[in-house]
Amino acid sequence: MRILGIDPGLALMGYGVIDYTGGKYTLLTSGVISTMAHSPMPQRLRSIYTGLSQLFDIYQPDDVAFEELFFNQNVTTAIAVAQARGAALVACAQRTENLYEYTPLQIKQAITGWGRAEKQQMQSMVKLLLKLDAPIKPDDAADAVAVAITHANCQHAKEDFKIK
Amino acid sequence: MRILGIDPGLALMGYGVIDYTGGKYTLLTSGVISTMAHSPMPQRLRSIYTGLSQLFDIYQPDDVAFEELFFNQNVTTAIAVAQARGAALVACAQRTENLYEYTPLQIKQAITGWGRAEKQQMQSMVKLLLKLDAPIKPDDAADAVAVAITHANCQHAKEDFKIK
Repeated sequence: MRILGIDPGLALMGYGVIDYTGGKYTLLTSGVISTMAHSPMPQRLRSIYTGLSQLFDIYQPDDVAFEELFFNQNVTTAIAVAQARGAALVACAQRTENLYEYTPLQIKQAITGWGRAEKQQMQSMVKLLLKLDAPIKPDDAADAVAVAITHANCQHAKEDFKIK
Repeated sequence: MRILGIDPGLALMGYGVIDYTGGKYTLLTSGVISTMAHSPMPQRLRSIYTGLSQLFDIYQPDDVAFEELFFNQNVTTAIAVAQARGAALVACAQRTENLYEYTPLQIKQAITGWGRAEKQQMQSMVKLLLKLDAPIKPDDAADAVAVAITHANCQHAKEDFKIK
């Protein structure tokens, strides 16, 4: 089972691809699709769409797991991120219907066993599970890998997490 | 000059295509891309993307004019509409960089000369300008045609309305 994890964002969209076989995780790639604040919104969204389409072409994931958006008071930021998420969902929906999402709480719970874990604890557990020499950088890529691992752990109940 | 007007929405995305030549407007098509509330969000966004891509294939517009989103207090609705707008922008951005947007106020002003015009006055003016026998239905399609006409009227200053 190959999983693409996505941490949605407009300036930085984190991604990570893992294989999960026989209870073991293998990291294939991770990184960020970055878009420049001075670029027009349509071009930024197109970059996200194109970047994710390329990841699909190369890695052909079975499932895609999104980190659910957390919306604070700033509506302008929320709108921008929602548009980026829309662009990402379109790219994914053209390749698969296996799209899932997990809240930050569910991700922390799945990785560390504790819903209020600190970023550094998350990083350490991800590094341990994937048997890496160093933590994943930048944070958005690490978050994307964490949601991919979460999805691997939730295989038995994954229909509950399907994006509706 | 051929213009595609878009009134963004998730359940109903209005569109209208007009030709504007020698000070005259001709309506080529108008309608709505509708998506079902019970469908998963990724599939709804994909339908919007696909529907707009097909409009591009058929009509090959030079410019695209969006009605700017109006966000009320309901953040959940705003997020849903913003995702739909993201999907629409991606579809358009793959074909052209000529993407513009106008506020409801600017559209009313351009069509009726009065920023607080009622929906019915707008309908009457659109019908008159396009020499139609009946008003355009549904409202979302009429709104999309109105923004296309607005863009036709703003050719001299259109760079000001480019989507940033």
